[in-house]
Amino acid sequence: MVYDGHTMMDAIERHECVALLRHVHVGRVAVVSEGEPLVLPVNFVVDDDGSIVFRTAEGTKFDACVNRARVAFEVDQIDVRNHAGWSVLARGNAEVITDPTELARMRRLPLIPWSRAPKPHFVRLAPDVISGRRIPPP
Amino acid sequence: MVYDGHTMMDAIERHECVALLRHVHVGRVAVVSEGEPLVLPVNFVVDDDGSIVFRTAEGTKFDACVNRARVAFEVDQIDVRNHAGWSVLARGNAEVITDPTELARMRRLPLIPWSRAPKPHFVRLAPDVISGRRIPPP
Repeated sequence: MVYDGHTMMDAIERHECVALLRHVHVGRVAVVSEGEPLVLPVNFVVDDDGSIVFRTAEGTKFDACVNRARVAFEVDQIDVRNHAGWSVLARGNAEVITDPTELARMRRLPLIPWSRAPKPHFVRLAPDVISGRRIPPP
Repeated sequence: MVYDGHTMMDAIERHECVALLRHVHVGRVAVVSEGEPLVLPVNFVVDDDGSIVFRTAEGTKFDACVNRARVAFEVDQIDVRNHAGWSVLARGNAEVITDPTELARMRRLPLIPWSRAPKPHFVRLAPDVISGRRIPPP
């Protein structure tokens, strides 16, 4: 997939996008809520099967995910000084994990809420589209 | 606005959110394209009136903005080591700037495309909702 046919950024191959996803700890989840886009940062892990797992409390993100809504997940690394960086966008249907065996496994993942708030729900995004782009330093 | 009534993060006041927006150079624009959320990083400036201005080529972002669509714009600063950070979310209707006088002024803003690609269009987001949250370091 090409993000945008009119840019001249370097596309990042899918296998490298997946490697980059595994390399970072915080991404941004975009959902559609009442027809409007929302985007919020979350810490996450990449599961063995390549899916993205994050935790959430009940709320907007949860509501959007509970019905297997389309979700976009973005990670990036930006070098402001050099006007360079890369970003990866993963898109797919989100799923709130409810299977007890699977939940027990999720709770053993290194996925600790950063806030003091409980984040009891685990959401999985198995991306069907992953794309990335890079602006190399000059 | 409260992001999510179930978290116990510190809310950031609107005036501080605006100050934080002025402090960073790259944010992420979320749009709805064919019913699906998309989120892409962009460099941007905050104009004198507090609106967020970024450049784009024709493509998904442009298409979503040209019809004054709802847009979400997120900035954050994340401290992975301390599991801390802040994020600001600005939401509003995007507008592609077409007025020649306004465009001439936009071209004098310190808003240079990072890629080699031309980004001829200027998009303005005048947020009607700005909210932020912070997870302080331990």
